[in-house]
Amino acid sequence: MSKKIVVIGGGGAGTGAATIAIQRDRSLDVTLITEFEDIAYSPCGIPYVFGRQIEKFDGLFLQPLQFYRDMGIKLCTETLVERIDINKRSVYSNKGQEFPFDVLILCTGWEYEVPDLPNVDLDGIVYIKNIRQAMEIDKRLDQVKKAVVWNSKPLGVELIAELPHRGIETHLVDPSPWLMADFTDADMMEPLQQYLINDVGVKLHFGTDLLGFKGQNGKLTHAQTSAGDIEADMAFLVAPMKPATKLAKSIGIKTGSTGGIIVDNHMRTNVPNVYAAGACIEVLHGLLNIPVNLIPGSYAYPQGRLAGLNAAGGDEAYRPVYVPWGIGAKVQVGGVLVSETMAKAMGMPYIVGKATGITAARYHPAHEMMIVKLLVDPNTRRVIGAQFTGGEGVKERADFLAFAIRKGTTVEELATMENVYSPPIGALGEPIANAAKNALAVLGG
Amino acid sequence: MSKKIVVIGGGGAGTGAATIAIQRDRSLDVTLITEFEDIAYSPCGIPYVFGRQIEKFDGLFLQPLQFYRDMGIKLCTETLVERIDINKRSVYSNKGQEFPFDVLILCTGWEYEVPDLPNVDLDGIVYIKNIRQAMEIDKRLDQVKKAVVWNSKPLGVELIAELPHRGIETHLVDPSPWLMADFTDADMMEPLQQYLINDVGVKLHFGTDLLGFKGQNGKLTHAQTSAGDIEADMAFLVAPMKPATKLAKSIGIKTGSTGGIIVDNHMRTNVPNVYAAGACIEVLHGLLNIPVNLIPGSYAYPQGRLAGLNAAGGDEAYRPVYVPWGIGAKVQVGGVLVSETMAKAMGMPYIVGKATGITAARYHPAHEMMIVKLLVDPNTRRVIGAQFTGGEGVKERADFLAFAIRKGTTVEELATMENVYSPPIGALGEPIANAAKNALAVLGG
Repeated sequence: MSKKIVVIGGGGAGTGAATIAIQRDRSLDVTLITEFEDIAYSPCGIPYVFGRQIEKFDGLFLQPLQFYRDMGIKLCTETLVERIDINKRSVYSNKGQEFPFDVLILCTGWEYEVPDLPNVDLDGIVYIKNIRQAMEIDKRLDQVKKAVVWNSKPLGVELIAELPHRGIETHLVDPSPWLMADFTDADMMEPLQQYLINDVGVKLHFGTDLLGFKGQNGKLTHAQTSAGDIEADMAFLVAPMKPATKLAKSIGIKTGSTGGIIVDNHMRTNVPNVYAAGACIEVLHGLLNIPVNLIPGSYAYPQGRLAGLNAAGGDEAYRPVYVPWGIGAKVQVGGVLVSETMAKAMGMPYIVGKATGITAARYHPAHEMMIVKLLVDPNTRRVIGAQFTGGEGVKERADFLAFAIRKGTTVEELATMENVYSPPIGALGEPIANAAKNALAVLGG
Repeated sequence: MSKKIVVIGGGGAGTGAATIAIQRDRSLDVTLITEFEDIAYSPCGIPYVFGRQIEKFDGLFLQPLQFYRDMGIKLCTETLVERIDINKRSVYSNKGQEFPFDVLILCTGWEYEVPDLPNVDLDGIVYIKNIRQAMEIDKRLDQVKKAVVWNSKPLGVELIAELPHRGIETHLVDPSPWLMADFTDADMMEPLQQYLINDVGVKLHFGTDLLGFKGQNGKLTHAQTSAGDIEADMAFLVAPMKPATKLAKSIGIKTGSTGGIIVDNHMRTNVPNVYAAGACIEVLHGLLNIPVNLIPGSYAYPQGRLAGLNAAGGDEAYRPVYVPWGIGAKVQVGGVLVSETMAKAMGMPYIVGKATGITAARYHPAHEMMIVKLLVDPNTRRVIGAQFTGGEGVKERADFLAFAIRKGTTVEELATMENVYSPPIGALGEPIANAAKNALAVLGG
């Protein structure tokens, strides 16, 4: 009898685990169970469909379900796992099915913590997660005149940047003092905020608590905030997210300080023959040397891939993560931990090197501003964080710095980096090198 | 009496040397001698003014001459150095002046090797170097119907990409089989060549020797090539370049295998108190561990800066170079040594990892193609070269890979690099990582 692998969850991690397992060993019996209708789509594209930067939802699906069935995966969609019996090695669904397994892979993802606010169940208060729900929201958007987005986590920033393109008066309500304040610095967010206010026309309400909602006939009419009521036909709640670990805990799987499932570098949990991957786990941060979770969705697939590979008899290890991030389009921001805000909060010693440069020759019309902020540990002189604000070229610089930090790069090395100089595509001085030189000046003084 | 520093040459190196020396020590007596009318302009912008991507020449000048005079530099323009008496420590000009020095900094740059071809002195046959001459050429361009550009060195590629924007039928005549063939690979130049042929409308004559010229009344009418005569009102000769070392040799300064002046890492020549910097010197290549010269013009300023600093009593060392390069605008190519062509020629062992990726989510309209080719030493598994073909993002990737190669990065490390995933600015899979994974597959097989 062939070895049975059951994967719970059909997001990036679950899809990666199931497909790689069966690709590695065609004799495996692989079942994927998901509560949703679809697997393997890109939820990250949803805000851009709302803004019509992407024309329709179709493109967000990687492959039709049949593609995975043809591969030999047993797909059980719209199926909720109710219980796992770890002694009997079986998974039980809400439809009364039993799925016996030799190896179990938990890719249960994350869930919103729905805030305990008055009238939070009014029609028009929505969450972005499932693509079918997003399609329904999208159909209503043409009728929406005013919207509130709660919280400038990255998804919130994408929403406020896109909704105005549909003619919607868009309000951000955020208790923090600037965009994505838990991992960014105020000075580096300022250009994006100015762009959102002046060019996109978003109303930014910082330092403002969401207190509840008012409605009429069950429909949302206002968001109540510490700065007063804001009229709204729709409210997008980018609520706190947490790893979905209920099933894991029910079979004695340990979770860590972040709330995520603890796995070793082969994605194994503490329960034999049970793996976990994706948003439900925590992983080690390479620089901070502490567990982190809920890192970007793009990490789910490679983690799931690894879980599937190792579950199918492979032997490949996961690495600590550094997590470069980036967001925006015309005005882009990005970077890699740590920010000055975080370094202060964690009591890490640091100095700052900052420079405003350009991305093409100063006399070439293609040049755009590129602001670089580097954090340097004054003891080791190693770079410990970077943030970028500019246009094109933020993503690539964030990738570069994540790699440089992983390689233990010193500020002297960055200050002497070489760069392409070509009038339409690169300035004489690379802004990263200029920021590093400024950091050296601080260290030298 | 204050220490006298004489700088010969007013390009990037000479300007850097003179300004940094006097900034470091205001008591110095700094003289800069140049045969030209101007100093400190950006000749790299010239082709883009020809194509009117840059509106006029004004922007190419960094500062007016008075700026440097106000700084305290004695500027002698349009002054040719005829002789150096190293025992008397004096420089003599064609105007009968004597410039005594304590320290001499040679920034004599490079010169074209004018080819020995029939009728090479016809009116209409031009070289791009001095900006005043370029202004004269520019004035004539509106009357030019057909032009020949000899040689697809980077300057030649810039010229053929820009001249058609002035309505000029542009022909490249090149003995090589593809663009910039001495340091690039054919497969990586193909997309740019197709773009130049199909979108820009350039006629590319590869494998074609330039044999001479025909004229009428002293004016150019045809370029004679091994593939037949080509009608032309103007011919741009991107002739071989060589370091200008006549003055250096006249005082016993040693040149190396490349023809460039040999300097130590403080830019000192073998003659005491004589420094050299810029296109007239050779420097060590970090990967190849051999001297190289005539590297991009952007290296001149930092080299000159270092020579000036050390001549003024400083102590800073130059590093071996890795030289990321990039060129283009809509279609961009770039990279860092070595290419497959070079590795073959030098007998270096290598394997190739190549991938065609995208620069934004596949479902986002902003995505462009990005082809990455990596060369890996199969023994050390270190990356030894990279080439990129795409649109935006080539420059940044070339900078990154130059740094990664300097840091001795292995292909495993690149294959596990992390990257920003955000639909408008970064795809799920970074093309560099995909190329590295493909290289690993080659190594593993």
